Amino acid sequence: MHLWNDPQQPADTRVKALLAELTLDEKIGQLGSFWPTPRQAGQLAGDVAPMESGLSAGVTWDDATRHGLGHLTRNWGTEPVSVADGLAHLRDYQRQVIERSRFGIPAIAHEECLTGFTAYGATVYPAAIAWGATFDPDLIERMAHAIGADLAAVGVHQGLSPLLDVVRDYRWGRVEETTGEDPYLVATLGTAYVRGLQAAGVHATLKHFAGYSASRAGRNHAPVPMGRREFEDVILYPFEVAVREGGVRSVMNSYSDVDGVPAASDRELLTGVLRDRWGFDGVVVSDYWAVTFLETMHRVAAGPAEAAAQAVGAGLDVELPNTGTYAHLAAAVEAGLVDEAAIDASVARVLRQKVELGLLDPGFDPEQIGADRDLDAPANRKLAREVAEQSIVLLANDGVLPLAGGASVALIGPCADEPRTFLGCYSFPNHVLGRYPDLGLGIPVDSLLQGLTDRLGDAVGHTLGAPVLEPDRSGFDAAVALAAGSDVAVLAVGDLAGLFGQGTSGEGCDTEDLRLPGVQGDLVEAVLTTGTPVVLVVVSGRPYALGDYADRCAAVVQAFMPGEEGAAALTDVLTGVVNPSGRLPVGIPATVGGQPGTYLAPPLGWFSEGVSNLDPRPLYPFGFGLGYTRLELGEAVLDRSELPVDGELVVTVPVSNPGERAATEVVQVYLHDDVAEVTRPVVALIGYAKVTLEPGESAVARFRVHADRTSFTGADLRRIVEPGTMSLRVGTSSRDIVTELTFNITGQRRVVPEGRVLTTPWTLDRA
Amino acid sequence: MHLWNDPQQPADTRVKALLAELTLDEKIGQLGSFWPTPRQAGQLAGDVAPMESGLSAGVTWDDATRHGLGHLTRNWGTEPVSVADGLAHLRDYQRQVIERSRFGIPAIAHEECLTGFTAYGATVYPAAIAWGATFDPDLIERMAHAIGADLAAVGVHQGLSPLLDVVRDYRWGRVEETTGEDPYLVATLGTAYVRGLQAAGVHATLKHFAGYSASRAGRNHAPVPMGRREFEDVILYPFEVAVREGGVRSVMNSYSDVDGVPAASDRELLTGVLRDRWGFDGVVVSDYWAVTFLETMHRVAAGPAEAAAQAVGAGLDVELPNTGTYAHLAAAVEAGLVDEAAIDASVARVLRQKVELGLLDPGFDPEQIGADRDLDAPANRKLAREVAEQSIVLLANDGVLPLAGGASVALIGPCADEPRTFLGCYSFPNHVLGRYPDLGLGIPVDSLLQGLTDRLGDAVGHTLGAPVLEPDRSGFDAAVALAAGSDVAVLAVGDLAGLFGQGTSGEGCDTEDLRLPGVQGDLVEAVLTTGTPVVLVVVSGRPYALGDYADRCAAVVQAFMPGEEGAAALTDVLTGVVNPSGRLPVGIPATVGGQPGTYLAPPLGWFSEGVSNLDPRPLYPFGFGLGYTRLELGEAVLDRSELPVDGELVVTVPVSNPGERAATEVVQVYLHDDVAEVTRPVVALIGYAKVTLEPGESAVARFRVHADRTSFTGADLRRIVEPGTMSLRVGTSSRDIVTELTFNITGQRRVVPEGRVLTTPWTLDRA
Repeated sequence: MHLWNDPQQPADTRVKALLAELTLDEKIGQLGSFWPTPRQAGQLAGDVAPMESGLSAGVTWDDATRHGLGHLTRNWGTEPVSVADGLAHLRDYQRQVIERSRFGIPAIAHEECLTGFTAYGATVYPAAIAWGATFDPDLIERMAHAIGADLAAVGVHQGLSPLLDVVRDYRWGRVEETTGEDPYLVATLGTAYVRGLQAAGVHATLKHFAGYSASRAGRNHAPVPMGRREFEDVILYPFEVAVREGGVRSVMNSYSDVDGVPAASDRELLTGVLRDRWGFDGVVVSDYWAVTFLETMHRVAAGPAEAAAQAVGAGLDVELPNTGTYAHLAAAVEAGLVDEAAIDASVARVLRQKVELGLLDPGFDPEQIGADRDLDAPANRKLAREVAEQSIVLLANDGVLPLAGGASVALIGPCADEPRTFLGCYSFPNHVLGRYPDLGLGIPVDSLLQGLTDRLGDAVGHTLGAPVLEPDRSGFDAAVALAAGSDVAVLAVGDLAGLFGQGTSGEGCDTEDLRLPGVQGDLVEAVLTTGTPVVLVVVSGRPYALGDYADRCAAVVQAFMPGEEGAAALTDVLTGVVNPSGRLPVGIPATVGGQPGTYLAPPLGWFSEGVSNLDPRPLYPFGFGLGYTRLELGEAVLDRSELPVDGELVVTVPVSNPGERAATEVVQVYLHDDVAEVTRPVVALIGYAKVTLEPGESAVARFRVHADRTSFTGADLRRIVEPGTMSLRVGTSSRDIVTELTFNITGQRRVVPEGRVLTTPWTLDRA
Repeated sequence: MHLWNDPQQPADTRVKALLAELTLDEKIGQLGSFWPTPRQAGQLAGDVAPMESGLSAGVTWDDATRHGLGHLTRNWGTEPVSVADGLAHLRDYQRQVIERSRFGIPAIAHEECLTGFTAYGATVYPAAIAWGATFDPDLIERMAHAIGADLAAVGVHQGLSPLLDVVRDYRWGRVEETTGEDPYLVATLGTAYVRGLQAAGVHATLKHFAGYSASRAGRNHAPVPMGRREFEDVILYPFEVAVREGGVRSVMNSYSDVDGVPAASDRELLTGVLRDRWGFDGVVVSDYWAVTFLETMHRVAAGPAEAAAQAVGAGLDVELPNTGTYAHLAAAVEAGLVDEAAIDASVARVLRQKVELGLLDPGFDPEQIGADRDLDAPANRKLAREVAEQSIVLLANDGVLPLAGGASVALIGPCADEPRTFLGCYSFPNHVLGRYPDLGLGIPVDSLLQGLTDRLGDAVGHTLGAPVLEPDRSGFDAAVALAAGSDVAVLAVGDLAGLFGQGTSGEGCDTEDLRLPGVQGDLVEAVLTTGTPVVLVVVSGRPYALGDYADRCAAVVQAFMPGEEGAAALTDVLTGVVNPSGRLPVGIPATVGGQPGTYLAPPLGWFSEGVSNLDPRPLYPFGFGLGYTRLELGEAVLDRSELPVDGELVVTVPVSNPGERAATEVVQVYLHDDVAEVTRPVVALIGYAKVTLEPGESAVARFRVHADRTSFTGADLRRIVEPGTMSLRVGTSSRDIVTELTFNITGQRRVVPEGRVLTTPWTLDRA
């Protein structure tokens, strides 16, 4: 047994021993990857990553693996194979990789897994934006653990999730992949996902470090205009939490540049912030082709050797999905563009990750990888349904909901009988199979029509009304006729996710404004003319502007791509089996223009009478959601009115259920910093607690708020706690505040050291 | 005679001597101002500055002038008075100010003067965005000199113009007040304006320092998300040129905050950049109420004393328009919030300005101020017409223009018979009188209908079609009928400027998207259905998206609020008397969404196939414009292919006129920096020359391009010249490139010192 092979040795010893044995070519092999895409075999057409076809061409398996291989890219994720066939491929790939490596080093197998394992036949959970609506980290952790268990069971070591991008512009196509517009919500849910996935033995990967979500006009990959303060306080914060509190093992760079500096070559970001400040000791991987893009898109490198040198020099360890640009690293070293020491540092990190994953232990047998498995097991489906139920947001209801027994229902709209509209862009059906309807979805997914019909039988009538995107009004008359003859109309409108312009939401599916896609807005107007009460059900990946018609609808329901169990969950909500408890992770705008938008705005970021004619205030604010019955929040109290700059206070919030059925509330704590040395958001979420109480039950939620939670990047760009008056606003949305609690921060302006208190723990004492 | 009174003494000596005599209250008086608004006298209603009514209340003349007064605000600019009456008021105010000052110090009288002296009966020149379309600094300098002469003649010392804000989002209401989206164009035209105004003895004021134009979603005063690099290279550059090369005497702060720091309290900006780096020794004045806004809007100050201390401590010398917040400076000194030394420094600058203006010379007699004068003299009108003619941009023409003699013309649209649509927001008629149509405009302004009828007689038929903003389609039928019965339809659509939501363009009149206001787009569609050739004339303050119909129009003309002589100028262009030569200072978008937008985008800021579905490329690009005949650009040549990092090269561009009539071209030189250490715009204007040639004439334009003109803010945030391959693209728009000239910058990466070469001189040798 070699030293590096010995599980009894410390990881560092093993890594150093193996690194010392490797030639430069072998080191570079460990920083590379290969994507055995079915496109190369001519089976499928169409890109699932930007510019995939062009950039995959010319990279061969033999070249990529000649000296060993760092990563195997998406064995499972790009063609519809059975588990048995997928395992056969993977075992064969790993066997070849091991054989070609002088030291028998296997590759790390990575896959996409955002809304579940992105593989044929695997469970499709709700889109990430729906997790945001659950406000439930425990649930997301359980979901991620289930995803991780499936991945681990079929030989996958690393999952390229979650996204910790904070929404800044609703027009961006990838809004559906995020958990919303609040950094604290994103941080807590993302960190929960990391914990769940990694507890199952699969390394999580934070995306996209950092700034991607704030691209100009919401266009994918476009430059990001942003100052350092916003970058620190909004963009970096969730990543810091996931690194420090989640112990995440991998991070992926953002495609975009911030103020001219691409993340993939930003040493200050990938090394200075991530490793030196936060202590991250995992592996940084590139987003697909991001190293190449330094040359071809950002134009900060004159050729592949320069691009590779910049990236590895910045601390970007592994190039995904193919060793295209890092193949030039030897030439880059030769030309003096990068020190071999930088390569060694990256290789050491990759080898350490392989040690952690057990890949360097004796007896790794590629033939033993994985076992046949149901990737959509009943337990998964149950979990998918729970997440879906918890994520559906009731926005308005004049009493039409729950649907009355016996009422005739006209179910209309492009999301009524198209199960794919329930699935996110990174689900296998929409990501890979979206262009191949004949292949089916690989899993059973009911449409809303099936769900409602199963429950209500022939009380449900249906007609399409309009397609998702095409400007086709030919179905309007039938829709109007059906609605006119029914007691209630359920209008299911929204998105169909896809890739690079193939959908209305998803990667590369950006939008210039927030009107419902295609002629769906006109369909809503047409059905409203009937006078039949309209239940508007928006099934979407981003918020759409509903100001034109919401006040004429009898009820409005927002479902953020609820996944494979969406039909059952929506049916349960609409019929009252489930008491809705989702809360908005993004605002629902009143108007279609006016982006970018975020509730994290200082006073001048809101409507200012006499300053601008435009009013950016949302129709439904961040954090908002109704239920059929609600919990009641009592008056919150503080345990102290003076908070030292390094102290802690406790907020106590009485909650009770005066209703006839169990209900759930998200108790939300916002910080209002009255006066500060820089402009501050009027309110920012700093704590929340999801509380479910039985009828008649009461409880007390207690939040521990450290002074660090009031900190921000000050005028001198250092993170500070500033003395002075602040308040905590406790309520049920960013607009619905029940109690405002004022307190004074006392002491001297405090520069907060690295390692500050990042989160707001809470407990619930039931009466 | 006192020392400070003696014109033979150096200014510094005089300033020091007087400063030494002043009490703290007297010093504070010099930093304040008073606005004798007619609103206070109950004559007019409605604000002409944000929140004016509320904030003016409670500040009295007696309080403001008790210890002397720094500035008199807009004596002329807020009520319709005759020159004689205005002079009587001004003389009286100055007499009182002098009497109340122990030392008899007069106030500096300032006025708005963007599109001409903003006074009743004064010439209204085209809006600033139209100056941008002239690409003619000499013409703008002459215009500004004429404006300055009028101001000086009636006792005004300082004009609150020009704007050097660089457009970043077309939705912003104040786009019409800028000269466009290119920093070099803004810098050169703005500096020309400064030279012209100051040569007439009136101090110019640069607005708005800095960042105002990039507010979130184009909403007035909203926060500005921007990194340091963009701030330096785009936003600050024009101000630096106007300070260093224009010798401007005053600067006004921006209302907004950049990345959380309001300009009004930003010492790094107002002192570090402006004075320490650039050597500015003039006076910084506040935008109206901006000091108060530190407390009430930005919330970086807990009260007026703190706000005042922050502003004066940052280097903001004078509070405009009223001494509201600076009245608390004595208390601020008492409380230790600011050193009296900071106040002294500001007072010294104000006194120095008064020395420069001759206000401290012996014998200043308030009764001798000004003389009666025609503020709209024939020479002014001639100049206004010249600027208008030079600013009209022909965007498309299938031969329908010039209008054929004898053809019947249907003139339709809200800009056809409404002369106010020709006038900018900061013209007296729209700024002050906009809400009082009964008062008239104060000057004769023809509508386009009058202009065309004067020329073409009863060949011109007219109907309104639709109002500017109201959703009133009742005029469509008449419009369609008129167009159907005519040989050609001239559709004059666009804006009516106003203040704070009273117009479709102007301060506080922002828009959420770029569709033509109201139902004007539908009017265009309706008229297009007739099949009659449509000449679309857009009279606007911002670019509107024309992609929906431009290709079905026979001709498209963009007129940027052409001022009081707009009718004559437009008529001359439409009938061919003038060969159009305006060029776009902003792109004309294809689509109504997708903002913010700028042509200064790196590759990923443009359309990227396979990355985003959205295409931000404009319908008509920056710099574009046609003529009835055009000059011909020959192949440009460089005098060298290797440019040392501190050297200079010369670009020679042959130009000839092959046509039958005189023609004008704007020869445009763009820099393309192929690879750089940060992302760079694909092209950026670094030189231009407006050339007019007679038929058959030819000439050679020579541009001297210093290596400093290739500089940018590098990865380390220092300004550098980077060695490597670049090219100059010479052509007639940012898209229409005739010659690409590649050269190498040689030597070591050069950090460019302060005082670099800021502009690109050119000469024209006629053959």
